Amino acid sequence: MRRLLRFLFLIQISGMKILLTGFLMMAVLVNASGQERKRARDYGIRIGVLQPGAHNAITDVAGLRVGHTTLVQGDKVRTGVTAILPHDGNLFQNKVPAAVYVGNGFGKLAGSTQVQELGNLESPIILTNTLGVGTAMNAVVGYTLQLPGNEAVQSVNALVGETNDGYLNDIRGRHVKEEHVLQAIKQAAGGPVAEGNVGAGTGTVCFGYKGGIGTASRKLPASLGGYTVGVLVQSNFGGVLQIDGVPVGEELGRFSYSKQVLESADGSCMIVIATDAPVDARNLERIASRAMLGLAKTGGIASNGSGDYVIAFSTNEGLRIPYSSDQKTQTFTLLRNDEMSPLFMATIEATEEAIINSLFRAETMKGRDSNTIEALPLEPVIKLLKKHNAIKR
Amino acid sequence: MRRLLRFLFLIQISGMKILLTGFLMMAVLVNASGQERKRARDYGIRIGVLQPGAHNAITDVAGLRVGHTTLVQGDKVRTGVTAILPHDGNLFQNKVPAAVYVGNGFGKLAGSTQVQELGNLESPIILTNTLGVGTAMNAVVGYTLQLPGNEAVQSVNALVGETNDGYLNDIRGRHVKEEHVLQAIKQAAGGPVAEGNVGAGTGTVCFGYKGGIGTASRKLPASLGGYTVGVLVQSNFGGVLQIDGVPVGEELGRFSYSKQVLESADGSCMIVIATDAPVDARNLERIASRAMLGLAKTGGIASNGSGDYVIAFSTNEGLRIPYSSDQKTQTFTLLRNDEMSPLFMATIEATEEAIINSLFRAETMKGRDSNTIEALPLEPVIKLLKKHNAIKR
Amino acid sequence: MRRLLRFLFLIQISGMKILLTGFLMMAVLVNASGQERKRARDYGIRIGVLQPGAHNAITDVAGLRVGHTTLVQGDKVRTGVTAILPHDGNLFQNKVPAAVYVGNGFGKLAGSTQVQELGNLESPIILTNTLGVGTAMNAVVGYTLQLPGNEAVQSVNALVGETNDGYLNDIRGRHVKEEHVLQAIKQAAGGPVAEGNVGAGTGTVCFGYKGGIGTASRKLPASLGGYTVGVLVQSNFGGVLQIDGVPVGEELGRFSYSKQVLESADGSCMIVIATDAPVDARNLERIASRAMLGLAKTGGIASNGSGDYVIAFSTNEGLRIPYSSDQKTQTFTLLRNDEMSPLFMATIEATEEAIINSLFRAETMKGRDSNTIEALPLEPVIKLLKKHNAIKR
Amino acid sequence: MRRLLRFLFLIQISGMKILLTGFLMMAVLVNASGQERKRARDYGIRIGVLQPGAHNAITDVAGLRVGHTTLVQGDKVRTGVTAILPHDGNLFQNKVPAAVYVGNGFGKLAGSTQVQELGNLESPIILTNTLGVGTAMNAVVGYTLQLPGNEAVQSVNALVGETNDGYLNDIRGRHVKEEHVLQAIKQAAGGPVAEGNVGAGTGTVCFGYKGGIGTASRKLPASLGGYTVGVLVQSNFGGVLQIDGVPVGEELGRFSYSKQVLESADGSCMIVIATDAPVDARNLERIASRAMLGLAKTGGIASNGSGDYVIAFSTNEGLRIPYSSDQKTQTFTLLRNDEMSPLFMATIEATEEAIINSLFRAETMKGRDSNTIEALPLEPVIKLLKKHNAIKR
Repeated sequence: MRRLLRFLFLIQISGMKILLTGFLMMAVLVNASGQERKRARDYGIRIGVLQPGAHNAITDVAGLRVGHTTLVQGDKVRTGVTAILPHDGNLFQNKVPAAVYVGNGFGKLAGSTQVQELGNLESPIILTNTLGVGTAMNAVVGYTLQLPGNEAVQSVNALVGETNDGYLNDIRGRHVKEEHVLQAIKQAAGGPVAEGNVGAGTGTVCFGYKGGIGTASRKLPASLGGYTVGVLVQSNFGGVLQIDGVPVGEELGRFSYSKQVLESADGSCMIVIATDAPVDARNLERIASRAMLGLAKTGGIASNGSGDYVIAFSTNEGLRIPYSSDQKTQTFTLLRNDEMSPLFMATIEATEEAIINSLFRAETMKGRDSNTIEALPLEPVIKLLKKHNAIKR
Repeated sequence: MRRLLRFLFLIQISGMKILLTGFLMMAVLVNASGQERKRARDYGIRIGVLQPGAHNAITDVAGLRVGHTTLVQGDKVRTGVTAILPHDGNLFQNKVPAAVYVGNGFGKLAGSTQVQELGNLESPIILTNTLGVGTAMNAVVGYTLQLPGNEAVQSVNALVGETNDGYLNDIRGRHVKEEHVLQAIKQAAGGPVAEGNVGAGTGTVCFGYKGGIGTASRKLPASLGGYTVGVLVQSNFGGVLQIDGVPVGEELGRFSYSKQVLESADGSCMIVIATDAPVDARNLERIASRAMLGLAKTGGIASNGSGDYVIAFSTNEGLRIPYSSDQKTQTFTLLRNDEMSPLFMATIEATEEAIINSLFRAETMKGRDSNTIEALPLEPVIKLLKKHNAIKR
Repeated sequence: MRRLLRFLFLIQISGMKILLTGFLMMAVLVNASGQERKRARDYGIRIGVLQPGAHNAITDVAGLRVGHTTLVQGDKVRTGVTAILPHDGNLFQNKVPAAVYVGNGFGKLAGSTQVQELGNLESPIILTNTLGVGTAMNAVVGYTLQLPGNEAVQSVNALVGETNDGYLNDIRGRHVKEEHVLQAIKQAAGGPVAEGNVGAGTGTVCFGYKGGIGTASRKLPASLGGYTVGVLVQSNFGGVLQIDGVPVGEELGRFSYSKQVLESADGSCMIVIATDAPVDARNLERIASRAMLGLAKTGGIASNGSGDYVIAFSTNEGLRIPYSSDQKTQTFTLLRNDEMSPLFMATIEATEEAIINSLFRAETMKGRDSNTIEALPLEPVIKLLKKHNAIKR
Repeated sequence: MRRLLRFLFLIQISGMKILLTGFLMMAVLVNASGQERKRARDYGIRIGVLQPGAHNAITDVAGLRVGHTTLVQGDKVRTGVTAILPHDGNLFQNKVPAAVYVGNGFGKLAGSTQVQELGNLESPIILTNTLGVGTAMNAVVGYTLQLPGNEAVQSVNALVGETNDGYLNDIRGRHVKEEHVLQAIKQAAGGPVAEGNVGAGTGTVCFGYKGGIGTASRKLPASLGGYTVGVLVQSNFGGVLQIDGVPVGEELGRFSYSKQVLESADGSCMIVIATDAPVDARNLERIASRAMLGLAKTGGIASNGSGDYVIAFSTNEGLRIPYSSDQKTQTFTLLRNDEMSPLFMATIEATEEAIINSLFRAETMKGRDSNTIEALPLEPVIKLLKKHNAIKR
């Protein structure tokens, strides 16, 4: 609980251009009974065969920072911003190899084509809501232009993803402002990452339950290279929920196209993958595509209306790409294709667990028009997991 | 057992150009105990939430035919050919909308770019072994050129996929001949489809067990359109086997990158999807990409060395594309994007089940250099499925 | 001259949300001698073998409208916005088939992935400068949300392209505001289209000369379908200028990587293609890719730093895609693949001519830091064209 | 003339598996007047602004070899094979970085997906006719399997392209045999490259004139890196011929969709690009895409029926990728993105000139059913080039 507090947030008094002041309101991230919802692994769930890193979070990739701005205001603002910074230097001047994979393109990810063409990332990755992408781009541009050393910069590729939180959030009100984005960047930190109803996950819905931000990681054994793969997701999609293989959605009778519900499976998932492995853009794209396999294992179906995008980058220091150089060539030490498979497996496992964590950590939320989304009911879920022997005792 | 017999096979006496005669040899597709291995569903396994079609096979898509040529010769030839014919007319003259999705491109699928460019398929789909693709292309070209009505045809796009059966099969001997391909086309039929060690699946390996051909289908309820999606796979890949969510690979201690085995996850999976739904090439490509989500649910990881390709086509009669026409336009009635998600779900489920069926139906096989691959051990697997409550009683 | 005047400025009496300050300055679109610069065809240049439409402009595609907001303020603001509206209805409710082709992805085109996934366009296309994309997205979102009939809309895919006008324009000042974008949309009209230093082309540079907005069209003869293809470009790239095949850049000694200059070829080109031909997204993507062939014929090289994007859509009324429908299917009458080549040729010709028109129409401009870009010197160019017999007399 | 003779025929004393019958006929590569047709540059044509290498051929890239097998037999066999070998070692054991770009996918290029996935090439590139691809694959597989050191190889990715020579050649007779492919590989050599009616270009048609094999190169000045780019084409496509900007097709009244002719623009172009520059697969793909810009400058339109594929690879010795290695990583020194543009320009120029060379060197040919294709008439063409001041005197 304590570590969550530092992610809380602005309420906007007014105005587009004027500097905001605001008072902070604590988001209620503790459920009614006063018991905190824990992460999947804390209940004995063991997804996959590889081991997580120290925090079981994207921040296990050294140097990477995550920041959230959570906007919970009045009875209808339920949205926010999440920022991921690959390293703590000037990203524009020291780009990282990166790739984007489009699982299903019904989304507004900005900046993807330049990443794909040049194979690098030059700005913090921002996640927010669907109608906030333009504002987030503006914020990233402003942030980059003002960084010391960027005085002559005239072109910035902002990589901004989103999912649609319009069921709980007054999305048409466009409450995300540039200040919120800058705040998320500014407060980005390493260490444990807040999950659930925070940042860009504040108002999202996943498998009919409250979704949100989730994260997880895998650290390969030394024999497989010892690299770390970290994943962060903004979960907001549908399908037939499975938790570590257990058909929870089916057992609870809540899933897309079920007879009772016949609800849409629409929604989206933004997935961000970081690794310290020395892989270039081509192999990062291959890693990115494997995240969809992790999503599949949670029961996601990449429905028509889902904007499922995966961003992958390497923080490996030997691969930093200087914006300008007096050298025409650069030397890279890269993993051979043959060594990629363990990274693929790590990606799949960490993505699956990150999504499940987003569900475990998210609390029931009531939002606009009194729309309410229940949190994943942990008690029956744990029972089901035990019934199916998915919880190892 | 009876229905398998008609799929058995040629041995080649000699020669490239001379007409072959040959004698048939029965493949032993019944295990030592005399008990036939049944399909997953016959043991009570229920993958997903949708219902299969009449045969739970790709042939549930009306008019579609499948043919196998199985080559089991001496102690080292363990290979074959599988042919899928979308309809029983002249395919070149009446093409079907089609798409190809490359899950992982470490494979030799021939013909993909033309399908992607023009959005249609003009030849039978052939699956065989890695080094047999050229021969299969030649056979398809010859087959197409000689069809009545094709006397003036000068260009044929053969769509030929493969996986590598070189562990059990003397693949370097290149035993697949054009005649075998033509035989598979010729004997293609509707109805139940032989699975396991037949056709292109004769010598394949999946999750460390004997893989092969598998098939399954889903029929959407009328409320979701009533369409059928059928899938056929040639399974030859690795990862951490899951059967309907149960971690079988982990429980049996046999999986890629396990401490004990540290075996490679390499291999490949060819996946063919047919539907009678009225979808064009763009949406068929979207369907195709979802098959990888089904593969993921079996524990596949699309490893570096895996050639994972998905071919999807629609047999819908209103969408046939004539080779030549005196009309400059053609009228199509197509599903709206909004209606695609149930087809995605059906694809995922049928792909997962087709792969599992390939494992259930494949028998232990001994091949070249006395290499032996055990069949998935059904007795312990069934026990595990019961332990995990995956078999509904 | 008269018809240009209405495109020249934005007088911002009261903005939508914020009052603008800043004074407007008239752009000088008439050269020193008082003679207006005419379009290429007015000098006898005949690019290609097909005939242009009535206006030789993208607006020859019936119903299509173009609007410019030109920002020439003080001594350093030289930028603007160009809006293209495929039809005059509610685009979100009646989408048009569309595609995006990335010639070289060093650019910030927002909205491309959704167009590629769903095959349609639901908003006006906006062109502006590199750092104005976020603002333009916000404007398009706002515009769409407030349209009658869109009261429940929660997701808008804004398609916003850009090139970098930072040599002449104080791009870091980010002078494009939402109001400018809305103004361009509002004043969009059919008929002749202003070219040169207007709208998004106000501050661009092409082949070392002043670039800008250019447009052209082709109308196929009835025997080839009678369809119209219209192109609009925002030219801002380098290479070795050729005008109707004449090596103007070489003859004038001004080209990328020439010994004298060794200037960079960087820059970008946004290309928008409209047609009334009944073609779906797949064939629109093929059309889009041909625009790069037209660019090539002007001497463009799609340099590393160039963001070369092509957007293509069909205004054909039979292909409108309703946002919602009580029908699960929709019927389309589409051109057969076999009929596409004349449209490809029309695209190539119109793109080439549109780029040349942008150069012919653009005036010398002085901008920030007294940077000055000369207009293409018409007198010597015409002489060269005569010397090379490119002007037919 | 002398150097051409060794490329002219294949005398098949004893084939690999089958004895060939058929009599060989000498191709007449000298025109009626006894004067040899020279290359474009020999007539004073100077395409572009960069300088060619020593041979103005793809073989200017050191170590690269080209071999042709030309099949001109009786009155209807007019076809052949061209092989390109990136280096003289065992390609499978020492792969080169490579990429494939699909300009228009109406073609049968085999092997493209693996090159795209893994970023490397492991076999000689083979060009032949449309119906010969399967046979060429088989030949490449056989060739690779038998190379010393490849005794354990079980998977070979043959990269085989084609165009359709069916107007002059009895393509349905499928006269290309594995022996012809092996012969082309065997006799591959550096130095000058035979052009015109040789190898895979024996029976091709381009802009309504006799096409064929063409080649050209560019060597960048030291200030731009000093790298060489070599291009080889198999020209077989249509459009409106331009030679160094001069509208030859229009002036001669022979072009696609002209009123007189209304001929189809169909056909194809295979383009192979080699460079010694240190560029990886991602940037090779970017280079490959620029070849289409060179094709555009000759008047090509990438028509619907055209299979326009570009293969690019780097022979840079520091970038060889060993098939197996005891190292998990490999170190590469690569050109920065910023340095790519001169290579793009070199690619465009060399592609344009290679196509023009194919037309200049190809002789009139009579083939099946007495179909005859005239060579580009050099005398009027030279006159036109002079009239348009394209020939520098």
